[in-house]
Amino acid sequence: MTKACTVAIDAMGGDFGPQVTVPAALKALADYPQLKLILVGDFASLEKILSLHHAHPSERLSLHHASQQVSMDELPSQALRLKKDSSLRVAINLVKAGSAQACVSAGNTGALMATARFVLKTLPGIDRPAIITAFPTIIEGKRVHMLDLGANVDSCADHLYQFAIMGSLLVSATEGIVAPKVALLNIGQEEIKGNDQVKQTAQLLSDSKAVHYAGYIEADQIFAGKVDVIVCDGFVGNVALKSMEGVSKLIARITKETFKQNWLFMLLGLLAYPVIRRVRKRIDPSRYNGASLLGLQGIVVKSHGSANVLAFTRAIQQAIVEVEHDISQKIKEEIGVLLEDQQ
Amino acid sequence: MTKACTVAIDAMGGDFGPQVTVPAALKALADYPQLKLILVGDFASLEKILSLHHAHPSERLSLHHASQQVSMDELPSQALRLKKDSSLRVAINLVKAGSAQACVSAGNTGALMATARFVLKTLPGIDRPAIITAFPTIIEGKRVHMLDLGANVDSCADHLYQFAIMGSLLVSATEGIVAPKVALLNIGQEEIKGNDQVKQTAQLLSDSKAVHYAGYIEADQIFAGKVDVIVCDGFVGNVALKSMEGVSKLIARITKETFKQNWLFMLLGLLAYPVIRRVRKRIDPSRYNGASLLGLQGIVVKSHGSANVLAFTRAIQQAIVEVEHDISQKIKEEIGVLLEDQQ
Repeated sequence: MTKACTVAIDAMGGDFGPQVTVPAALKALADYPQLKLILVGDFASLEKILSLHHAHPSERLSLHHASQQVSMDELPSQALRLKKDSSLRVAINLVKAGSAQACVSAGNTGALMATARFVLKTLPGIDRPAIITAFPTIIEGKRVHMLDLGANVDSCADHLYQFAIMGSLLVSATEGIVAPKVALLNIGQEEIKGNDQVKQTAQLLSDSKAVHYAGYIEADQIFAGKVDVIVCDGFVGNVALKSMEGVSKLIARITKETFKQNWLFMLLGLLAYPVIRRVRKRIDPSRYNGASLLGLQGIVVKSHGSANVLAFTRAIQQAIVEVEHDISQKIKEEIGVLLEDQQ
Repeated sequence: MTKACTVAIDAMGGDFGPQVTVPAALKALADYPQLKLILVGDFASLEKILSLHHAHPSERLSLHHASQQVSMDELPSQALRLKKDSSLRVAINLVKAGSAQACVSAGNTGALMATARFVLKTLPGIDRPAIITAFPTIIEGKRVHMLDLGANVDSCADHLYQFAIMGSLLVSATEGIVAPKVALLNIGQEEIKGNDQVKQTAQLLSDSKAVHYAGYIEADQIFAGKVDVIVCDGFVGNVALKSMEGVSKLIARITKETFKQNWLFMLLGLLAYPVIRRVRKRIDPSRYNGASLLGLQGIVVKSHGSANVLAFTRAIQQAIVEVEHDISQKIKEEIGVLLEDQQ
């Protein structure tokens, strides 16, 4: 990283709270000498975990007390109304106030989305924020970004078009791809297929100069590595994401059970372990942790709730990259140009 | 099987046509002594493949000529208009005429759906047919059925409610489960989440006595084995299905590549092969081949286009089971009762 950058961490969020967020923060500070972090949460808990790691607050690592926590199953509306001093909200407040350039949370997705939208507001010209993340592909080293993964439950064609522009800008900036290929998720490649929402969006994308539109893509081609950005509505994207999680877990579990069926298989499992570890590493969700909430006046990164230290560190890295490339500002400018063109 | 049953086979459909459908038909005839099959397609091609397998038409295996074929990428509307003597259409016609009790095709899904709906019509009280299939779960021997997997691109709450009833009846009859647990696919378990379509359907299902409604389910829980039927709209269901396919292929490919990285890994791969084969067998899509088009006045089973002989035989079995349990009639009766109650 070249710029100075301060990231606020919702240290209480996620399934493991400070037990994961604090060591991940320490790791990120070690990896990025110019990085500054603000750990937001219960002072006593944070100091305790810090001391377990023989670490202390410093010029680069400050603590910011927050008296409340948002639980993982709390309704977003309730969190917004009743948890004004939660670690999640205070971390976002720090971005709003300019004390941090980004925030990272492994907390309740709905509450994070609602709070970030309420506190930071969307960028001018953006109706709705969207959640984007990267997936591995069959081409080693190549990733594909997909949005929206669940920030919205129903989106119209205009929203999907905005998602396409935001996704394209993010990938262009962070992956250094000049004109990222943007595809639209559909249930068939033929023109006749798809619902009205998808057909209208296809028209907008075909007509647009702001996006390199690559046509429809079916969900079994998500990992084919042929496109850079895949756009879909939040309900569909979330179902796709969770389906992938489900099937991965099913395969992992059945593999594990099978290797345990008898002594010979257990021995084979031990022998084959280096191979299995290498496969796992290549598709390890930790390596792809860190979903971005795009379209807000500020950078917000969502970590998976069950993230481990490595995965949470990846989410912090994602925030750093977005700060480095000034993503919010880039989206604001591009959307500004498009709005001017329309007038 | 206890009843006599005749199944019409679209012998030209699928990626491999008669090369797969004919040997699969011969296998099914061997497995079920009371079964009769009608192979529909090009006479010359069918006789050629039959003779390769040292088989001949018989009282149990008749040939029915059809001069046309529907290609896998043909538009449904075009197939409907221009392919009136296609193997796909003639197989459905045989069901309509009562010459067969069911038909099976590995052909173009859209064309099959459109033709079946046009020729057979939906059952009274059913607005739209739906595609249903079974998936494995983490509990060995337990399967979960999901619908709609892509017969429709947009469905309202009433349609989803009908899907729930049809899915419940199919599972009850074919799996012998008295009151199958029916869940609604959503992107969150909290009441606040989900779009209007899902919320309205949840209300209909909660109020219904015809269905044992088990609440919302997220897509990462599809394979958890906690419910028997999962209902969703066709766009979402198709994306879920294809996402699962995509991630399975990604994992298989990366595993294969990794085992090929060096001689040691190749050796380990050879040693571990019996385990990998057992894992593959448990989640092998062939074992779950045979999606049903529910809600029609007749039984239509869709095989995966790339099905091998084993998989296509499974699809024929699915048709036999549905004939045995008189699925169309059961749905007709149940929907009839519900319609009477509403009046």
